[in-house]
Amino acid sequence: MLQLTLKNVRANAPLIHCITNYVTVNDCANALLACGASPIMADDIAEAAEITTLCQATLLNIGTLNERTIKSMLLAGQKANEMGHPVVLDPVGAGASQLRTETAKMLLENIKFSVIRGNISEIKTLALGSNTTQGVDANLDDRITEQNLLPTIQYLQNFSRQTGAIIAVSGAIDVVTNAERSYVIRNGHHSMSKITGSGCMLSCLTAAYIAANPQNPLDAVAAAFVLMGMAGEQAAAKSQSTGSMRTGILDALSELTAADLEAGAKIEVY
Amino acid sequence: MLQLTLKNVRANAPLIHCITNYVTVNDCANALLACGASPIMADDIAEAAEITTLCQATLLNIGTLNERTIKSMLLAGQKANEMGHPVVLDPVGAGASQLRTETAKMLLENIKFSVIRGNISEIKTLALGSNTTQGVDANLDDRITEQNLLPTIQYLQNFSRQTGAIIAVSGAIDVVTNAERSYVIRNGHHSMSKITGSGCMLSCLTAAYIAANPQNPLDAVAAAFVLMGMAGEQAAAKSQSTGSMRTGILDALSELTAADLEAGAKIEVY
Amino acid sequence: MLQLTLKNVRANAPLIHCITNYVTVNDCANALLACGASPIMADDIAEAAEITTLCQATLLNIGTLNERTIKSMLLAGQKANEMGHPVVLDPVGAGASQLRTETAKMLLENIKFSVIRGNISEIKTLALGSNTTQGVDANLDDRITEQNLLPTIQYLQNFSRQTGAIIAVSGAIDVVTNAERSYVIRNGHHSMSKITGSGCMLSCLTAAYIAANPQNPLDAVAAAFVLMGMAGEQAAAKSQSTGSMRTGILDALSELTAADLEAGAKIEVY
Repeated sequence: MLQLTLKNVRANAPLIHCITNYVTVNDCANALLACGASPIMADDIAEAAEITTLCQATLLNIGTLNERTIKSMLLAGQKANEMGHPVVLDPVGAGASQLRTETAKMLLENIKFSVIRGNISEIKTLALGSNTTQGVDANLDDRITEQNLLPTIQYLQNFSRQTGAIIAVSGAIDVVTNAERSYVIRNGHHSMSKITGSGCMLSCLTAAYIAANPQNPLDAVAAAFVLMGMAGEQAAAKSQSTGSMRTGILDALSELTAADLEAGAKIEVY
Repeated sequence: MLQLTLKNVRANAPLIHCITNYVTVNDCANALLACGASPIMADDIAEAAEITTLCQATLLNIGTLNERTIKSMLLAGQKANEMGHPVVLDPVGAGASQLRTETAKMLLENIKFSVIRGNISEIKTLALGSNTTQGVDANLDDRITEQNLLPTIQYLQNFSRQTGAIIAVSGAIDVVTNAERSYVIRNGHHSMSKITGSGCMLSCLTAAYIAANPQNPLDAVAAAFVLMGMAGEQAAAKSQSTGSMRTGILDALSELTAADLEAGAKIEVY
Repeated sequence: MLQLTLKNVRANAPLIHCITNYVTVNDCANALLACGASPIMADDIAEAAEITTLCQATLLNIGTLNERTIKSMLLAGQKANEMGHPVVLDPVGAGASQLRTETAKMLLENIKFSVIRGNISEIKTLALGSNTTQGVDANLDDRITEQNLLPTIQYLQNFSRQTGAIIAVSGAIDVVTNAERSYVIRNGHHSMSKITGSGCMLSCLTAAYIAANPQNPLDAVAAAFVLMGMAGEQAAAKSQSTGSMRTGILDALSELTAADLEAGAKIEVY
């Protein structure tokens, strides 16, 4: 299953419209190119919807949002819905400010998302309305552990049922779930949290993978998570220093093959 | 000719005012520094014209444009015209949205450009009014090949005649032309299309090269194209993976000497 | 003293709110992560003050400023003052345009800064009201040399007395001073000026170091300068080419230990 999803991305080279933060936007564009997709960034109200029509999927990332780009996200997401294209939400920092929490909720109310990809604190903020987020990293108390894994999966399946979206949570242990079926993924390396953008890049890969694998969206999202995790592992094996990790992750995203993915995946169905 | 143009950039260290997209802006700044020039990015209406007066050339790149920055581009370009400084247009994604097509046309009507640097689809959009652009990459049907090279050169010379600008088209085969004289450049490596920003960086180099070589603008633009192509070749010889290609191109831009350029150039007059 | 300041940053992992330019923002985020701190970038008026309340320090960098972000800087800085959190000003390009000079002055009038970190031309612009800045680099005539070192220190101490801020000037010779006590630091490498962002990253490190060392702000700022200088030295020892320097500096920031800092510091009290 993993092999096919990767091959479909490389064969179809989906064009992904990204409205995303300016902190990690370059890494997002390069991550999409590395995995075989193609990025286009366009956040002005006057072109957001039109650019969406050219693309196979839309990625909305609320980091460094502002009044202008919030409107563009809404327009792009609604146009993608209209066309039946997948839309991914990355609620960066939801819970860290009212603006981010309210924007994420507003987007959830007005756009049907295919996938919501965040850390566990961001996802809990959206599901509960509680603010457990500290900055843009997950709160330690929220983290998914072996001990709380099963109830967390139940919780995320429930949120998937409410939203109709695949819920995709990254951390030391990743959970990718729809309302019925869940994957737990244990790829990745702790040094990935020592560079900015690993979450943002993962959301972009997620958009590329569901765009190229419309028959198997859940498997596609899981494959994107395995790919990102393995890229982190491969990079960390060379150097865990910040500059080299960043370069190494992009290198690995372009080097990992379908066979590598199959061989290295640490994925289980729950 | 190539040697002198490179030496002039390193000797004069021209300051380049860039109003450019936020996706590749860091690479643009580093590319300018690597080649011996100096960047200043300033896109607010309240300072765009004033910053232009400090600089030796102005670069207008319409990727991630918005209402605010479009106004700043106009002001900066007109001020540069007033001062007799060269202005380079990079019409990123012209044809991909009405906003981009219309903005590029508006800028062409109101600013006298020294160089228009784009991929063939973007240039055709401006020349024809047709939209052959798919995303920010050139459409396959448009690509310059050995078969269509001569008519394409004629076509681009004609567009140069209309605009008064040097037309500089990058791709597997590059064409740099004014109304009478054309260079065809075959440097570069296909892996350059697997990182974001190689076109944007090339436009910045172009601005630096014409700023430092006012006597020979056509040669200067051709030299910038040879430099970028050779930087891609040198990077690809070490690694074609996305992260390393990016680092390698910036390294090569700072390492390539005048003698290297002369020795490695694959350039012909047509 | 240096060892303790570094250990405090790594132990406390301060969260730093950055309102900064889009040219080097990714490097700023990675530099903060590399040194053991955590970044959050948020520049919208609707969340700037709220994000500040989550953080331990605030960094205001006026590169690529605009009307919207100027307002956010004011709100964030004032909120940080209200909470007693340190605020760092990086007056990028003050003197290069009226907008930047006026904005820096307006911020100085309305916010109490803990540190002002710039190149000597930017600092002189603020202290004198004169415009000696050329672009975003220091004017050659302004540079701190062995010959003008003592009067320059007097001058900067005086500016510290006026503003109540630590004045921290980077260049071939760095000076970090409050009204009474000055450090002169001779770490660093000339190739650091051949990448964009070394000043911006240093300002971010400065914010992290004072946040984690509230008892010794002057020592903390000096330590941040030694760290950045040594990171440049370590990177340059491997490669002075632009792409590799950038990666190497981020690597060194994550690798340098407290003991390294103590051993490699070229710091004197004046």
